[in-house]
Amino acid sequence: MFEQRHDELKLTEDPAGMDPDGHVVFIGRMSSPWTLREECPKNMRQARERNAPARLVLEPAYREGLSGLEGYSHIHILTWLHHSPRNLIVQKPRHATEAKGVFAIRSPARPNPIGLHTATILDIDRSTGTIDLDAIDVLDGTPVLDIKPYFPSVDAIADAKIPNKERT
Amino acid sequence: MFEQRHDELKLTEDPAGMDPDGHVVFIGRMSSPWTLREECPKNMRQARERNAPARLVLEPAYREGLSGLEGYSHIHILTWLHHSPRNLIVQKPRHATEAKGVFAIRSPARPNPIGLHTATILDIDRSTGTIDLDAIDVLDGTPVLDIKPYFPSVDAIADAKIPNKERT
Repeated sequence: MFEQRHDELKLTEDPAGMDPDGHVVFIGRMSSPWTLREECPKNMRQARERNAPARLVLEPAYREGLSGLEGYSHIHILTWLHHSPRNLIVQKPRHATEAKGVFAIRSPARPNPIGLHTATILDIDRSTGTIDLDAIDVLDGTPVLDIKPYFPSVDAIADAKIPNKERT
Repeated sequence: MFEQRHDELKLTEDPAGMDPDGHVVFIGRMSSPWTLREECPKNMRQARERNAPARLVLEPAYREGLSGLEGYSHIHILTWLHHSPRNLIVQKPRHATEAKGVFAIRSPARPNPIGLHTATILDIDRSTGTIDLDAIDVLDGTPVLDIKPYFPSVDAIADAKIPNKERT
């Protein structure tokens, strides 16, 4: 699914085969229009441009955890990007001019394949454990690890700087 | 370390004892001034008010992953909050007036105890795997799972709404 490209660098020891330091449990799944990697938006900006709503569905045991989320406009969603390799420490995205460290990009291929997505809440139904969202940039069926309310006071840094050459 | 309070609700099955759906590896640790839970800031706003810098230190195998991070002013850090219980689905924070679902608060006690912290980069030294930060709201020694560059285009939502009664 992922090929190694020129200039890329692999870890000597693949985290996928290392002894666990901790374990995650899947608390739900994302429902999205994207079933093929080629058509999946690469980030939330691209996802919003496709104008295709998405849905998060929680397992029954975790649905009470949604109480009190009414009134928030946005959430962070943490996902488990289970199709991604974990051993690429320097990567060259397909249209990039140079290879970059994994911690300087938002690639799904990471030592711990956790995705971070900030989405707009359209609707919450606690009885069915569903949150309707404006968009999502992951494949249909992607496991969910966590949901956090978005607080502009700590999460919104409008004047954050990125390198001049990066477009987002 | 955590006591159960009135109105709180526990999961029938504790995620800490469930079969793993995936495993994490620790890629580094946070170095912070906080060694006692009582003195640890509860969020990044409180952490900044303490005016105490912090440092992230990566394990040697992962240090090349920092290449290309120069030029970014902020990062997201994902941590593993290993001292927190995982079975509290509805919680009543100490000074809160009502109990809330875990997905409506930023409590460290979560089914998957992953912390999300957005910090300002003061300095990066790839050779020693260190990132100096303006502040951090976790205990000294907290394991690190991931680092992601902060992109204002998808991460900064200045007009995000929170319920009127919440102060942040």
